[in-house]
Amino acid sequence: MAAQPIKFGIVGCADIARKVSRAITLSPNSTLYAVASRTHEKAAKFAKENGFPDSAKIYGSYEALLDDPEVDAVYLPLPTSLHIKWAVLAAQKKKHLLLEKPVALNVGEFDVILEACESSGVQIMDATMWMHHPRTAKMKEFLLDSSRFGDLKTVHTCFTFAADKNFLETDIRVKPDLDALGALGDVGWYCTRSILWAADFELPKSVVALHGTVYNTSGVILACSASLQWGDGKTATFHCSFLSNLTMDMAVVGTNGTLRFHDFVIPFEENKASFGTAVKSGFTELVTGWEPKPSEHIVTTELPQEALMVSEFSRLVGCVKFEGAKPEKKWPMYSRKTQLVLDAVKVSIEKGYQSVEIVE
Amino acid sequence: MAAQPIKFGIVGCADIARKVSRAITLSPNSTLYAVASRTHEKAAKFAKENGFPDSAKIYGSYEALLDDPEVDAVYLPLPTSLHIKWAVLAAQKKKHLLLEKPVALNVGEFDVILEACESSGVQIMDATMWMHHPRTAKMKEFLLDSSRFGDLKTVHTCFTFAADKNFLETDIRVKPDLDALGALGDVGWYCTRSILWAADFELPKSVVALHGTVYNTSGVILACSASLQWGDGKTATFHCSFLSNLTMDMAVVGTNGTLRFHDFVIPFEENKASFGTAVKSGFTELVTGWEPKPSEHIVTTELPQEALMVSEFSRLVGCVKFEGAKPEKKWPMYSRKTQLVLDAVKVSIEKGYQSVEIVE
Repeated sequence: MAAQPIKFGIVGCADIARKVSRAITLSPNSTLYAVASRTHEKAAKFAKENGFPDSAKIYGSYEALLDDPEVDAVYLPLPTSLHIKWAVLAAQKKKHLLLEKPVALNVGEFDVILEACESSGVQIMDATMWMHHPRTAKMKEFLLDSSRFGDLKTVHTCFTFAADKNFLETDIRVKPDLDALGALGDVGWYCTRSILWAADFELPKSVVALHGTVYNTSGVILACSASLQWGDGKTATFHCSFLSNLTMDMAVVGTNGTLRFHDFVIPFEENKASFGTAVKSGFTELVTGWEPKPSEHIVTTELPQEALMVSEFSRLVGCVKFEGAKPEKKWPMYSRKTQLVLDAVKVSIEKGYQSVEIVE
Repeated sequence: MAAQPIKFGIVGCADIARKVSRAITLSPNSTLYAVASRTHEKAAKFAKENGFPDSAKIYGSYEALLDDPEVDAVYLPLPTSLHIKWAVLAAQKKKHLLLEKPVALNVGEFDVILEACESSGVQIMDATMWMHHPRTAKMKEFLLDSSRFGDLKTVHTCFTFAADKNFLETDIRVKPDLDALGALGDVGWYCTRSILWAADFELPKSVVALHGTVYNTSGVILACSASLQWGDGKTATFHCSFLSNLTMDMAVVGTNGTLRFHDFVIPFEENKASFGTAVKSGFTELVTGWEPKPSEHIVTTELPQEALMVSEFSRLVGCVKFEGAKPEKKWPMYSRKTQLVLDAVKVSIEKGYQSVEIVE
C-alpha cells in the first residue's frame, strides 16, 4: 500500500467487535487506531484483549472517539436502536461508517443515516461479511451464466441457531428497546440479503410473512418466515429463528441450473469454502439415477471474509480520502433494499400475514 | 420364499410402468404375470420390451386383466382422473392395489377407492418409492433421536424439473381432464409426503399457498408453493414446479439437529444414497468457522428403492393371501393425509391464498 492505512475507531465493545478487530488487524490497508466504550476501563480491557497496538487511543465515551480528528472510519456494532443517533453523529464528524446489521430499526431511520453520510461525503457499508468472500463472486458468475443457470425462478434460505437460555433472557437481540427486530433483524437480515443478492438486488413486488411467528414475552420475534414475489414470477421463501439448530441453507434454482450451499453466512472453514452446482440435471434411462450429477466447487481465500470486507471498505474510504472520489453507492443501496424487505415482512406479520407491496 | 410370488398385472403402459416392471422382476416375492393396455398390440409390445416372461398374459383391455382370477395385484399408473374408476373396479375384483400418485383428484375420490379396498379386504399402497429406501429408515432414526435431533421445528422441500416443450404440450400431467392437479399432484405430492413423513404424519393444522402460482393456458398448475403450520409451532414450506432445473431438496431442522439431502425422491445413484446431518452445531472461537461440522452418511442397498417398494407391498399382499392377515392400514393413511394436504393447498390457491384448515 502506497497510501496510509485507514485508521479505525471501534464504537462499542460488542462480542462481534472482537471478530472485526481481528479483521482490521488482518486487513493490510486498515489499522486499529481507537476504541470507545461507555467506560474507559472497558475500552482498555477490550483493546488489550483484541490486539490493539500500544499506541491505540482508549476512550470512555463514544463522543470522545468521534471527536478524534485522526479517526478515519468507525465500526459501529451498537444495538440497532442506537444506530440512528451514533451513525448520524459519526457521519457528521466525517467518519466513514462500517455499520452492523440490521442497519436501522426501519428504512425511515436508515434514510436519516444515509442523508447524514451523503451530506458529509462519507462511505457507508453494512457489515454483511459473506458478501466479500471470493466464493460469493464465483457463485455470482454461475448465477449470471445464462447457459449454466438460466433465469432465476426460486430461492430458499434458512438461517437458524439454537440460542441458549442466557441468550434468550439477556442478549440485546431479544430486547424490544435495543433490537426490536429480533430474529428477523439478526438472522433474517442474512436470509433477506442473500435472496436479494441472488435476484441481483431487484426488489420483490410484494412480501407475505408466513403464519407461525414466535415471539418472546416482550413481543420480540424469535422465529418467523416469509415469502417474496417478483412481477416476473420469481419467488423466494426464507425461515429465520433463534430456536432451532444452527443451519444456514441457501438454494437458488434457475431454468437450467441449481446453486446450493449450507454455510452461506459463515463458511464451515475460514480459508476455504465450497458450493454445489447442478446444470441441466436429468435422469438416467428408467429414471434410476441422475445424469449429470451435481458438482462441488472449492474456493480458497488467504484472508477471511471479514478481513476482505474491511479491506474493501478501507479501499473505498481511501479512494474518498486520498483521491477525492465519491463514496460507492452500491453498498448503501444493498443495505437499504434489505431493510425495506425486512420492514415489509414486519408489517405483513403485524397485519395478520397480509401481502405487503414493496415501495422503493 | 416358501410362498408363491405375488402375480402382478400392469394396468396401463405409462412410462413409469417400465421402471416398476423392472422392479417387480427384481423383487424376489413378485412376478410379472399380465399386462393390459387399450390395445392388445400395445400391451404385447410393452411386455416384450420390459422383461415379461413368455408366459405372461397380454390383454387388450383393462377389464380383461381385472377379470383374470390368477392376478393377485395390479399396478395402476393411469392418469389421475381415471383412478377412481379403475382402482375401485380392481378392488371389487379382489385385486390388491399398488396405485400411482397422486392417488386421486381429491380426498373424496380417494375415500371411495379406500371403501372399495376395505370391503374387498385388499391391500392398497401408493407408489411413493423413496419411502422404501433403507436411507429413509436411517434418516427416521435420526429424526426420532431426541438427543441428536430434538423437536422438529421446520421443514423445507423443493422438487422441480425443467419440462421440455413436448412435455408442456402433451404430457398427461398438464392436461386438465387427465391430471388436473398438475405440478402440485406430481412433484408437489413428493414435497407434501416428505414433510408429513418428517412430522411423523401428524397433519398440519392449516395450509397457506404462497403467491406466485403459475398455470398453463388450460388452467393446470405448472408451479406453486405452500406453507404448512402445526398447532405446536412447527412450520414447513415447499416449492414444486415443472419450470425449473431438476432439484430435490429436503431440509429438516430440529432443536438439536439438522437433516438434509438433495435427492429425496430419486437418489443420485441406484445402489447407494447419502444424507447429511448436523448435531448441536456451533461456531469456533470468534465465530470464524463451525464446530462441529455437519457429517455425511452413506446407505447402500442391494435392491433399488422401487424393488423394495414392490417387495414390501407383495409381503403385505402375501400376509393377506396366505396367512389371512388384515391389510396394513398405515400405507393408505399416508396416502390419504398426503392427498388431504394437496387438496388444502389447491383450495388455498383458489381462495386467493387464504389460510385453509385441515380437517381429517
